[in-house]
Amino acid sequence: MEVTNKYIVIKSKIDGKPQENDFEVKTEPFSLSLKPGSNDIIIKNLYVSIDSYQINRMKSVSISHKASDFSGGVSPGEVIHAYGVGKVLASGNANFAKDDYVVGLINWGEYSISQGVHLNKLDPMGFPLSYFVGLLGLGGFTAYVGFFEICKPKKGEKVFISAACGSIGYVVGQYAKHLGCYVVGCAGSSNKVKLLKEKLGFDEAFNYKEETDLNIALQRCFPDGIDIYFDNVGGEMLDVVVSNMNSHGRVALCGMISEYTNAVKRATPDLLNVIYKRITIQGFLVGDHMHLFPEFLKMTIGDLCTGKMQVLEDVLVGVESIPAAFLGLFTGDNIGKRIVQLSLN
Amino acid sequence: MEVTNKYIVIKSKIDGKPQENDFEVKTEPFSLSLKPGSNDIIIKNLYVSIDSYQINRMKSVSISHKASDFSGGVSPGEVIHAYGVGKVLASGNANFAKDDYVVGLINWGEYSISQGVHLNKLDPMGFPLSYFVGLLGLGGFTAYVGFFEICKPKKGEKVFISAACGSIGYVVGQYAKHLGCYVVGCAGSSNKVKLLKEKLGFDEAFNYKEETDLNIALQRCFPDGIDIYFDNVGGEMLDVVVSNMNSHGRVALCGMISEYTNAVKRATPDLLNVIYKRITIQGFLVGDHMHLFPEFLKMTIGDLCTGKMQVLEDVLVGVESIPAAFLGLFTGDNIGKRIVQLSLN
Repeated sequence: MEVTNKYIVIKSKIDGKPQENDFEVKTEPFSLSLKPGSNDIIIKNLYVSIDSYQINRMKSVSISHKASDFSGGVSPGEVIHAYGVGKVLASGNANFAKDDYVVGLINWGEYSISQGVHLNKLDPMGFPLSYFVGLLGLGGFTAYVGFFEICKPKKGEKVFISAACGSIGYVVGQYAKHLGCYVVGCAGSSNKVKLLKEKLGFDEAFNYKEETDLNIALQRCFPDGIDIYFDNVGGEMLDVVVSNMNSHGRVALCGMISEYTNAVKRATPDLLNVIYKRITIQGFLVGDHMHLFPEFLKMTIGDLCTGKMQVLEDVLVGVESIPAAFLGLFTGDNIGKRIVQLSLN
Repeated sequence: MEVTNKYIVIKSKIDGKPQENDFEVKTEPFSLSLKPGSNDIIIKNLYVSIDSYQINRMKSVSISHKASDFSGGVSPGEVIHAYGVGKVLASGNANFAKDDYVVGLINWGEYSISQGVHLNKLDPMGFPLSYFVGLLGLGGFTAYVGFFEICKPKKGEKVFISAACGSIGYVVGQYAKHLGCYVVGCAGSSNKVKLLKEKLGFDEAFNYKEETDLNIALQRCFPDGIDIYFDNVGGEMLDVVVSNMNSHGRVALCGMISEYTNAVKRATPDLLNVIYKRITIQGFLVGDHMHLFPEFLKMTIGDLCTGKMQVLEDVLVGVESIPAAFLGLFTGDNIGKRIVQLSLN
């Protein structure tokens, strides 16, 4: 049986700010039947993750050149791999059966063919499937690894999170509150600030666009200094945070959204401060820590079941909405985890 | 008995590049007798350490405001505390006796009065006293802590050291060679480059002043990338190193001499690189790691006794030479540990 598969491609490499016009929907016939002897898995994509880091794969000089995984360069006209949830339509792979739900490497399209690499069977345990793209997927896990493994937090420490309403920040803030930290977030709208304080339980939050002096904003929110900074933005904010950090402060570099589309923009933290305050600044990728996934899942499901963990999802529908969903990340459109739902069944 | 004590002071706070004229020699009568009931220790200073970080204590806005230790702000007209070796002339403190050698917090002058804070009895074990100011003192210990504790090196890793002929860099390079690392250093003269390769056993070295493109220099010396960077200089070099680092690279921020006297000059490492390569950048101060001093001393004395460890000292004589000795650090005059000998007996 053959269907029409629609998927998103870039028309050419993207340097600078991405535009709607950089993307197009490609339509191709797609066979739902396995070739004899094939060990492919044919997947109907259900929910796919929309992440700002994808822009780094679309640049002329991609950070990584490994193909076919989450971080390799994306070629114009070719399928764009992404994290998501799907349903198996046919499988020649003994580990996957028809009608299994799967989570892992699919793509920004309606169907995927997988060889089982970076793909796992998914038992939804009664949770909405979309949770496994965000909170119970790589997004939540990134928050878990970055906060617990990289920041090594202690109860009572003062934690600052940028892009705190983003897919990772909103989870970090809740983990930090559960641990007994003092938690402040910044975001780009008064709505988000309200949500951080009223729904997610942040101790303080501010709209960085409305602050004339970030240093004053941080001094107001952190009269006793910052112990931990979970950085999703880079740029000037990092500089100001470092100058407000306490001794032995830790910075987890998770994302640099303010620098992704502007190669000239760079953070210039005062390294004398970094020395005298013995600050550690650490970049991390979640793929190095997959052995922690089971403990992450156990804890986070526990938090969900006891009502301690709020879920923020921002779901758009249909493959055609992927480019706009992606572009919106760079203007702060999203509240929580941005996901595109590809099929209603 | 009263003598004349000469010591160095700053005339006013120093912002920007220090000049000879910023310093003066102060002369004061100094009693060598203890007041009855006093528990002071009266010390004749023998060797004192000359370190570039002292400039940070002399700025209008000092990094730290704690007085009377190694890192607090220095006030114009007042004694400048520094690390060094002396001899006890009189003691009201039960832990110190006349004629004991001591090591620790003395000052840029001929005599010190101590309450025993940051001061230890010294058994020279047959080594020259000056060794305990440099290689067997805080300088060598800083190299030890920064390399072994902060960089967590493994045999075979590729190590880069800036200011590699400086008081700390030259020791780091030798530790790294002893461990079985590939070691490259940069320095500011062809003499120093020669010394690094021929006397200290560095695998490669280059004169950064003669390289038109630091990136090309690093690519030439590190065809397989850099695993560890021991940073004594900050500024542009850090940026170029980060772009040549391997995954899971580690940067120990030990000093920022290129930024000490130029507040505008800042490193701008590409933090996207730091994330994708999971690099850790860590500032440290040796005072946090004093529990490691015995193991450092044991190992380094062992290296000295087996002839594996070369000592580079750059000793000037007389209290009056301190300002010039200090200023010379910022123009790269020194080769190895810069020390001023205050007395010939």
